[in-house]
Amino acid sequence: METLSIVKIGGNVIDHAANLDKFLASFGRLTGKKILVHGGGKIATELSKKLGIVPQMVDGRRITDAESLQVVTMVYAGLINKTIVAKLHALNHQAIGLSGADANLLYASKRRVEEIDYGFVGDIETVNTKFLTQLLASGFIPVVCSIAHDGKGQLLNVNADTIASTIAVAMAQKESWEVRLWYVFEQAGVLSNPADSSSVISHIRPAFYEELKANGTVSGGMIPKLDNAFNALRNGVRSVVVGGVNLLNDENQPRTLLTL
Amino acid sequence: METLSIVKIGGNVIDHAANLDKFLASFGRLTGKKILVHGGGKIATELSKKLGIVPQMVDGRRITDAESLQVVTMVYAGLINKTIVAKLHALNHQAIGLSGADANLLYASKRRVEEIDYGFVGDIETVNTKFLTQLLASGFIPVVCSIAHDGKGQLLNVNADTIASTIAVAMAQKESWEVRLWYVFEQAGVLSNPADSSSVISHIRPAFYEELKANGTVSGGMIPKLDNAFNALRNGVRSVVVGGVNLLNDENQPRTLLTL
Repeated sequence: METLSIVKIGGNVIDHAANLDKFLASFGRLTGKKILVHGGGKIATELSKKLGIVPQMVDGRRITDAESLQVVTMVYAGLINKTIVAKLHALNHQAIGLSGADANLLYASKRRVEEIDYGFVGDIETVNTKFLTQLLASGFIPVVCSIAHDGKGQLLNVNADTIASTIAVAMAQKESWEVRLWYVFEQAGVLSNPADSSSVISHIRPAFYEELKANGTVSGGMIPKLDNAFNALRNGVRSVVVGGVNLLNDENQPRTLLTL
Repeated sequence: METLSIVKIGGNVIDHAANLDKFLASFGRLTGKKILVHGGGKIATELSKKLGIVPQMVDGRRITDAESLQVVTMVYAGLINKTIVAKLHALNHQAIGLSGADANLLYASKRRVEEIDYGFVGDIETVNTKFLTQLLASGFIPVVCSIAHDGKGQLLNVNADTIASTIAVAMAQKESWEVRLWYVFEQAGVLSNPADSSSVISHIRPAFYEELKANGTVSGGMIPKLDNAFNALRNGVRSVVVGGVNLLNDENQPRTLLTL
């Protein structure tokens, strides 16, 4: 089985050109096949603001009305995706940018309205793992933004962490890749003391994760991120690493490893 | 030689959802392999206006400063490209949206500043015809937006008519496709009397084209469009047809055929 690294980058990598350049250089040096997954960060929020759209958030997730969907489609699938692809080519990597609509990569269903109406938000049903595997075999780095479609002409916003873990599971289960999933975000890892950026927990297993949730060490937007991660591990992904922008640059950087 | 239709749609198709839906239905029924090329139309102009960017035009071509480049990247590569791809999937066609940065599809050089500084505008140097042919062979419809890159990390705006004719020539010369090029725009064809929408000229050959330019029948933005077309014909493209949104719907629609 060949190793496939799936790396999801957060807003802090995307929002600052210097961070993005540093990250892409280290991402390029990562050996083996790889897929990059990104959302949007502050750029979408700022564009919405300029256009007079008030962004609404519940539990760290964006409520996506029709106007907000246009904004995220423009920013994620257009500006950020193509900027990253152009920068990877400048580093001599063959990259191809994709939304979930392209090649039916991420087929999703619009989330049903229960307590909260998330708007044009999707839950992924299928991943076109065959197409991703063909691209990887041809030497491409797929760069996937967090927009899916419902097969009926509707684009849908999907949480980028979820896309990364869903692609990771699908590639492990359906295409037999040995998948390593990386979450690069604004901290050097999961912190035992949120006020102390150096308090990175080096290894979390499921029982310890339950403790960390119960005592409030892990809370807010970190919970869906780590839920995604453990879900991926339970479904065939080999390892998950959570860390900061220098994660891929230096093996000695602090980081949090998640395993079963 | 297999037939390849390359269809470029103009702003009037993109700007109105009803036109776009009607066009895509007829495009879907077009037999043989096909590529769709699009720019942006009014959506980019309107977004620029909302953001307080004043769009500048010279000879029907947009001057692209850094802010305008962000807008066209968002609108062309993001909103319009992914909307079209999602709609084609809803019509049961496998489509994949691409900018010129993706898979190094359109490698361009930034236009040198001579009399006019066009800003971040590119002139295409190479087309990745091999990748397009692979996609076509796999049953995909490539949907190409009018953004290229310079291989050094810079995205560039390129006139969509030029992209269509450049891809057409490259696919004919390098991959031996029998290429038919279609320009779908706001009129039913080239008009002999600009005030009379029914005065469509049915056939134009090079000598007649020179006459039409000399007597002012063809002027303004029509000149680069037809120059592109005749250039494509002189370089191996089989035929060029210019017509309105119903062009592909009905063989009896008026249209202008260009041949050598």
